[in-house]
Amino acid sequence: MSAATITVLPGDGVGPEVTAQALAVLRAVEETYGHRFTVHKRRVGLDAIAAEGVAISDSTFEICGQSDAILFGAIGSLPPGADRGVGPRPEEALFRLRKEFGFFANLRPVRPFEALYGASSLKPEHLKGADLLFVRELSAGLYYGRLESVPGKPSEIRRAPHGTEAVDTLLYTEEEIERVVRAAFEIALLRERKVTSVDKANVLSSSVLWREVVERVAAEHPTVTYEHMLVDACAMRLIRTPSEFDVVVTENLFGDILTDEASMLTGSIGMLPSASLGTRRTAGGTFGLYEPIHGSAPDIAGRDRANPVGAVLSGALLLRHSLGLTREAAAVEEAVEAVIGEGLRTPDLAEPGSTVVGTREMGRRITDRV
Amino acid sequence: MSAATITVLPGDGVGPEVTAQALAVLRAVEETYGHRFTVHKRRVGLDAIAAEGVAISDSTFEICGQSDAILFGAIGSLPPGADRGVGPRPEEALFRLRKEFGFFANLRPVRPFEALYGASSLKPEHLKGADLLFVRELSAGLYYGRLESVPGKPSEIRRAPHGTEAVDTLLYTEEEIERVVRAAFEIALLRERKVTSVDKANVLSSSVLWREVVERVAAEHPTVTYEHMLVDACAMRLIRTPSEFDVVVTENLFGDILTDEASMLTGSIGMLPSASLGTRRTAGGTFGLYEPIHGSAPDIAGRDRANPVGAVLSGALLLRHSLGLTREAAAVEEAVEAVIGEGLRTPDLAEPGSTVVGTREMGRRITDRV
Ligand SMILES: CC(C)[C@H](C(=O)O)[C@@H](O)C(=O)O
Ligand SMILES: CC(C)[C@H](C(=O)O)[C@@H](O)C(=O)O
Repeated sequence: MSAATITVLPGDGVGPEVTAQALAVLRAVEETYGHRFTVHKRRVGLDAIAAEGVAISDSTFEICGQSDAILFGAIGSLPPGADRGVGPRPEEALFRLRKEFGFFANLRPVRPFEALYGASSLKPEHLKGADLLFVRELSAGLYYGRLESVPGKPSEIRRAPHGTEAVDTLLYTEEEIERVVRAAFEIALLRERKVTSVDKANVLSSSVLWREVVERVAAEHPTVTYEHMLVDACAMRLIRTPSEFDVVVTENLFGDILTDEASMLTGSIGMLPSASLGTRRTAGGTFGLYEPIHGSAPDIAGRDRANPVGAVLSGALLLRHSLGLTREAAAVEEAVEAVIGEGLRTPDLAEPGSTVVGTREMGRRITDRV
Repeated sequence: MSAATITVLPGDGVGPEVTAQALAVLRAVEETYGHRFTVHKRRVGLDAIAAEGVAISDSTFEICGQSDAILFGAIGSLPPGADRGVGPRPEEALFRLRKEFGFFANLRPVRPFEALYGASSLKPEHLKGADLLFVRELSAGLYYGRLESVPGKPSEIRRAPHGTEAVDTLLYTEEEIERVVRAAFEIALLRERKVTSVDKANVLSSSVLWREVVERVAAEHPTVTYEHMLVDACAMRLIRTPSEFDVVVTENLFGDILTDEASMLTGSIGMLPSASLGTRRTAGGTFGLYEPIHGSAPDIAGRDRANPVGAVLSGALLLRHSLGLTREAAAVEEAVEAVIGEGLRTPDLAEPGSTVVGTREMGRRITDRV
């Protein structure tokens, strides 16, 4: 029996609906396998701004820090026009969580189910054999300027002699690069032992340093083959020959773009889970934040239409990486595959011959299987 | 009859092979329609570094500046490891050309031929109706740090108190944003009157300013509908629902990534042309640089395997935008479509039932049609 504490941050839009299903699945795991999960639920994003005046409160932060894992839903966006304001911004919650808990490695596995080949916009022959794991750097790069306002690292709109200009700063220390590249090579040892490092070394100085670090880390892992790929070429090859990839490691913004693109292999971005990990150890593994890669989808929120699979599979990653419950994680993943195999689909994946169900029914069927 | 001067910069890898075919097609246009094209051929990229010690020489620059248009092939990359050196870099040629001639708008049309649906990794039902025009900002953003070394805009690897770090700077002035956004709205008036502006406004200050400028320019174009889209969402929707797009305008690096991705709609990156335009007028239009969007492809260089269509279609754009020869441009485009329609394919597009030909034969067949 394991005892663990999980903080759930449902957030905005479809976040509460999908995390409710993910939590139901975790509860089923708890019961079936005789564990004890203590769950705290707290506000985040627009929801927290409305109720507490900040995107994430200090007390929520504290509860998160005392947990073994965080299950995260989604955060919404400010209405257009409010972007430049000085008030709290929902994204800040994510950035603060990533930064302050040191979640530098964001794992995004992409493995299209054969039963869903029909739902993908790619031809089946291009999907066959695709099984990728993205390792996205999550704590640095262009992302942190607005939050931190560190000298020498501006992210701002400002008056200049010739008029208004805006600047963002892409900064990486060697150490920030090295720890995520190392994580990628170590994970590759458990998979097909191939790493593709994606950069734009013909343009960016940060990519030149990135390549040097990859060379050095690669030298310590002689059994792992590796290659460098330019980000533009990668955007192409992800949909041309996805089965050539195994582990893909890249900087923050490239990882953001490429993983959303790669989600199309699976038929819907609603399918994809993610794990954000740092270095703090828990009883069973590593403290982490788990979230589907989709956003808050305000257009379908509250309508029982969201695909809960990305959230449920994020729960599986939570069991595996933070709680060390490998068998239970596999059981959840098998339950998802079985239910999809039966032809059950949320509306994002509807196709002729499938049985379309809502968020809750999809979650219930997976829960029943577990 | 038109008289015009064209500078051809074949460059590296497959560049010379594909520009030779594009030039043959332009020669056929000259003859058929009774024009006079004066052609200068000069070195660029690795080729120029080897022969002249610089990626592009001042005299080549001068010849380009006196021409109506530049037909460009491709430039190669430095061998791995030489990246961080202080010697000349092949990319500098492109960056200097773009910067010093003020080529701020890079047009990249993407319209998959129905005859090539089979060669695309996307399903035909997702390709149907796709007809996009990317307007990529080409003169600013993260691209110019290493070349210019402007104070306050670093692109460098440096020692910092805690170790080595690398920095790049994403800088846009309001004016740089405005001119390219304006170009996009004006082009949209000639098409389906829809503009998608792509940014990452939930993270980047430069994107927040970008959005504000788009709002202002949009207000001056009430007959054009427009939307803002986050770059990650765009990477997804380009392959999910490409027919929803008309004109897509975005900053430099996003444009680089998204257009390579979108090239997969056409079956091969070898199919896509581009036009880089500034404000200098020529007798027939606007001074510009025309190049296929593919790279130098050293693995297939010199083997008569490269697809010349991207280069040939770049020649068509040259006729249209710099020489004002609309009818001739259309004739070239029709010739390409006809030859593809006959089932002729270079190896990148080979599929069962097609006739596979080399670079030269493909060019000859298009030339014959013109
Ligand atoms: C909401 C947004 C700031 C976030 C990001 O860009 O990191 C999201 O797109 C993601 O991928 O988690
Ligand atoms: C060669 C490289 C610097 C260039 C770019 O990134 O602009 C190329 O990828 C392109 O798209 O023209």
